[in-house]
Amino acid sequence: MKKICLFLVVALSLGPVFAQTAREEIYEDVHCSAANYYAYPDPVGVKYTTAPKGYKPFYISHYARHGSRWLIGKKEYSGPAETMRKAYEAGALTAKGMEVMHVLDSLDHMSKGRLGELTPLGARQHRGIAKRMYENFPEVFAGNAPIDARSTVVIRCILSMMAECLQLQTMNPDLQIKNDASYHDMYYMNYEHDDNISKYRKSEEAQKVRTDWWNKTIQPDRFISMLFSDTAYVSQNINKGGLMWNIFDIAANMQSLDTDLDLYPLFTKEECYAIWTNKNLSWYHNYGPSKLTQGKLPYFEANLLKNIVETADSCIKLNKPGATLRFGHEVVVYPLTCLMELGDYGTTEEDPAKLDEKWRNYKIFPMASNVQLVFYRKKGSNDILVKVMLNEHEMSLPVKSDMAPYYHWSDVSDYYKDKLSKMSF
Amino acid sequence: MKKICLFLVVALSLGPVFAQTAREEIYEDVHCSAANYYAYPDPVGVKYTTAPKGYKPFYISHYARHGSRWLIGKKEYSGPAETMRKAYEAGALTAKGMEVMHVLDSLDHMSKGRLGELTPLGARQHRGIAKRMYENFPEVFAGNAPIDARSTVVIRCILSMMAECLQLQTMNPDLQIKNDASYHDMYYMNYEHDDNISKYRKSEEAQKVRTDWWNKTIQPDRFISMLFSDTAYVSQNINKGGLMWNIFDIAANMQSLDTDLDLYPLFTKEECYAIWTNKNLSWYHNYGPSKLTQGKLPYFEANLLKNIVETADSCIKLNKPGATLRFGHEVVVYPLTCLMELGDYGTTEEDPAKLDEKWRNYKIFPMASNVQLVFYRKKGSNDILVKVMLNEHEMSLPVKSDMAPYYHWSDVSDYYKDKLSKMSF
Repeated sequence: MKKICLFLVVALSLGPVFAQTAREEIYEDVHCSAANYYAYPDPVGVKYTTAPKGYKPFYISHYARHGSRWLIGKKEYSGPAETMRKAYEAGALTAKGMEVMHVLDSLDHMSKGRLGELTPLGARQHRGIAKRMYENFPEVFAGNAPIDARSTVVIRCILSMMAECLQLQTMNPDLQIKNDASYHDMYYMNYEHDDNISKYRKSEEAQKVRTDWWNKTIQPDRFISMLFSDTAYVSQNINKGGLMWNIFDIAANMQSLDTDLDLYPLFTKEECYAIWTNKNLSWYHNYGPSKLTQGKLPYFEANLLKNIVETADSCIKLNKPGATLRFGHEVVVYPLTCLMELGDYGTTEEDPAKLDEKWRNYKIFPMASNVQLVFYRKKGSNDILVKVMLNEHEMSLPVKSDMAPYYHWSDVSDYYKDKLSKMSF
Repeated sequence: MKKICLFLVVALSLGPVFAQTAREEIYEDVHCSAANYYAYPDPVGVKYTTAPKGYKPFYISHYARHGSRWLIGKKEYSGPAETMRKAYEAGALTAKGMEVMHVLDSLDHMSKGRLGELTPLGARQHRGIAKRMYENFPEVFAGNAPIDARSTVVIRCILSMMAECLQLQTMNPDLQIKNDASYHDMYYMNYEHDDNISKYRKSEEAQKVRTDWWNKTIQPDRFISMLFSDTAYVSQNINKGGLMWNIFDIAANMQSLDTDLDLYPLFTKEECYAIWTNKNLSWYHNYGPSKLTQGKLPYFEANLLKNIVETADSCIKLNKPGATLRFGHEVVVYPLTCLMELGDYGTTEEDPAKLDEKWRNYKIFPMASNVQLVFYRKKGSNDILVKVMLNEHEMSLPVKSDMAPYYHWSDVSDYYKDKLSKMSF
């Protein structure tokens, strides 16, 4: 049912140079339009750049989003189901509308007691990531290497951590794994309650750009008339764009479940693309480096980047540091990617019609998305190299290197420390 | 620092026949007086009864409490620390009082962001339980046996589950482990919001028994005068019994932490015993079969017992059922033990002075306490046997058997089903 959006990885990985337009990618596989609900695309056919001679991986630091999950909001399943039931009772649905009502009703029931929870697919995604991490960097996980795994206090993240750790333990029973999920670590694991930063989201200019783009791109009439037979009922009772958006979210997230139910066919490919462009824009304004929000939002991850840098500085002094695994959310992975300026994700594009030439959120934060820093060293040398991968694809970093995607850690850590020292709000 | 309270396990395990009085046990190791904060005592020197000829274990069903944890309440550390700081500022503390203030202050700081969380000791307890379970019943965990592990939605329980599962995976990388921690399962994993049952706790008669017992057994003057130099300050500002109780809770739970700090020496052994008898009584009234609460409270675990019976009935039909592991709380383990009538825990004793001849809560629900049902079968026979252990000690069940602690599962399941069918409120 679901094809895989192939990522193009060019030699030296100079960031998101895309082989296809976003429209082409979504037309080829509408699941990409799910944005943050997009199921993790296992890296297929990715070739990794050989490390410079003599260098071996010895430490990994990662931040990974939880895997596929149920929708979270109390009304996300029940709201549209209720809307359709009421319309049914008023005799206002088409035959297709009744069919959709039944599917929504099933999902509403299936989701009871499960809102926001990791699905079995979500656990499998993390097992896969752990398996490849182990296979690609066996030196890191050799012997009784210590694994420091930490999660936010959210259960889907803890269970994602569990899936990775169990997979690693399966592959090497000698690994010394420690787990934690504490409020104590939340200031860097998912820090988003700082008014000094979030105030930039209130930009009226950004809001106007989004509203104009919505009005320009969203035409719900075809979708609504497919479901409803009574136009008078619709005009009195239905928020057309809102209902289309809400049912789209349910359709988009059905790839998280092990089910054959499918609501994507309700939407034309053009509608999927159009809805997605609005999501892409909103995330760019609210979590990305957009000029309209003063480029401040990525700094939500200042504490996390500081933790990554300082933990690495400390761990690379050890003989066998193993891995530091962190489990959290897409609201962290997206701004972290921007703050670290992975690929072109430190640059800006304010024209909504051009945004997806550079920015495709489904490439940044699908379910189980992850940023991996892999550290290398060479016998007899103090020079530490680092390679960073976004969703297991090598990425360029914002410093010079004559052996990209391998960089001197001293250059990278200096750059990030300097950047963080200069932040102001 | 901490000795182990040895359990006496008599041949055929006819329940809590104790070699020592509770007072003797607590005098020998005051940590027992911590009641539900008592660190899990690894079974030492326990001899298990050989299974009847030809019978092999093939399925385990368990419910385990999370391991050692920090205190939970917002004021549990900060409240007493604040009380002592205020008294210090008023010049009302003795030298010992100032010393205690510093320890309380340290604990208050150490606990920041950690309230209610599993400690490293808590994780080690579960690793130990899993290790012994694996070693004692290797047939259950052979090959690619499926492990269905579920937790309540509380993080310390999820991390306890993780510790057991990682340990099992270490011992057999082929185990197929599934994990969940869902609101979906809370109706049986920790069900305590039923007014039909909890109304019995309001018994005024039970309340009077507890108040009288408190007044008879608790004399806080020695403790208070050790800490405070100013009796006028004390009489105006300090709830003497309350403060003693609160500091006792902190002292009692310090065995959960990997620390050399120790407040137990503030209390005489007699005080430890006296405070514990009040805790023992309160738990008996509020979770046990006490006549004063109509014997109704154990029925809080009706859903859980039903789940245990029905899951077992279903699993024993499988060729290789593996294990069903559940992780939760002491407020479940205690009433479940009573509802299942393990040992003598189905019987009653309303005289507070005699209660601990039969009932010692620290034997039921220490940190990481667990009820394990181990199922046995014999080639060529349909007769399934079950053995039940409380904290890894064989227990008698409320049905007849000529091979106790092994029982015919059909007798046991019939008994429990009949009991549950007759419950009324």
